[in-house]
Amino acid sequence: MRVAELSRRSGVPVPTIKFYLREGLLPPGERTAPNQARYGPQHLRRLRLIRALVEVGGLGVEAVRTVLAAVDADLPQHEVLGAAHRALSATPALPDDEAAAAALADVDRFLAERGWQVAPDAPSRRDLARVLLALRGLGRRADAEVFAAYADAADALAARELDALADADDAAGAVERVVVGTVLFETALAALRRLAQEHHSARRGNGV
Amino acid sequence: MRVAELSRRSGVPVPTIKFYLREGLLPPGERTAPNQARYGPQHLRRLRLIRALVEVGGLGVEAVRTVLAAVDADLPQHEVLGAAHRALSATPALPDDEAAAAALADVDRFLAERGWQVAPDAPSRRDLARVLLALRGLGRRADAEVFAAYADAADALAARELDALADADDAAGAVERVVVGTVLFETALAALRRLAQEHHSARRGNGV
Repeated sequence: MRVAELSRRSGVPVPTIKFYLREGLLPPGERTAPNQARYGPQHLRRLRLIRALVEVGGLGVEAVRTVLAAVDADLPQHEVLGAAHRALSATPALPDDEAAAAALADVDRFLAERGWQVAPDAPSRRDLARVLLALRGLGRRADAEVFAAYADAADALAARELDALADADDAAGAVERVVVGTVLFETALAALRRLAQEHHSARRGNGV
Repeated sequence: MRVAELSRRSGVPVPTIKFYLREGLLPPGERTAPNQARYGPQHLRRLRLIRALVEVGGLGVEAVRTVLAAVDADLPQHEVLGAAHRALSATPALPDDEAAAAALADVDRFLAERGWQVAPDAPSRRDLARVLLALRGLGRRADAEVFAAYADAADALAARELDALADADDAAGAVERVVVGTVLFETALAALRRLAQEHHSARRGNGV
């Protein structure tokens, strides 16, 4: 198909498609004339993946590039997962002070007590330490145990998610499923938590 | 305290504090000389709240403004929650086409079947519809029931969270707790899900 049809079928404007081509996020089409190229279903699929990452996951161009590189590198599933996580956790380094070191040590202890096997430098550890630091700055309860109920919920969900991946018979699509699952269901989980909060708040009559 | 001490105690650089003052996110200090002002503990607290929203929650200036306006307006807790949610769900409108309308209808049906009392225009409904649309675009399972396990987890967490708020004896701090809880624990939950995925992936030997 020509770029106009690719645009129509994906809902992505032609200038945006050209931007993705220039940035190397979308592989070039097959050149049919000096100023014309033909695109296939793999371009449509890749374009939809990019849009899902950008529009639903809120990822920037560099984060998308990181994720797609992992998808294309034919890495083991575990490493693709790691790449998707790193792209999502684009948090800056923690402050270089005692409070930050103490928060990170608390998070590490909390995870170790749960027996979770996670890389010592997983960026999500820093995300949690940052939450602890912010809570402490606001005078809130400041113990990593505050995460316990969330960790229980996350543990149950992740076990289901990895089971579903193991059952998938589409080996070629498995890597894409990892990425999509990580990014899209993170958005879904956040949206559902807000809706559930609204529901429980309304039920308690706080809305009246 | 002077602005230099406010900066030292909050860890926020003086130019950033001045930016927040200009933007009206931070109320002005008490003027002590034409070019000097004095700040109190309420400024320090507000600054820490802004930083938590920006650095941990990833909110932009306009979203922070929306949240702080709700905090300051002395609204009922339910409405503060709504304002915090709107600030977090800064997703654009859905496409104006049949596929989007169908996805939104599925989400609405799913929530109605669960008996969740949520506003018909809650932005999180759109977030969920957007996830469904993206999944469908990628040829994935396209039924709102795909959210069921996430909704169960969110329901249990939200019930706990609202219970904890009801138990708090600090009425003045309750509004801030709502905002902080919504924003910071959303980050924490996402980070914990990624860590749990990594753990389950490693246990299944995909990392080897």
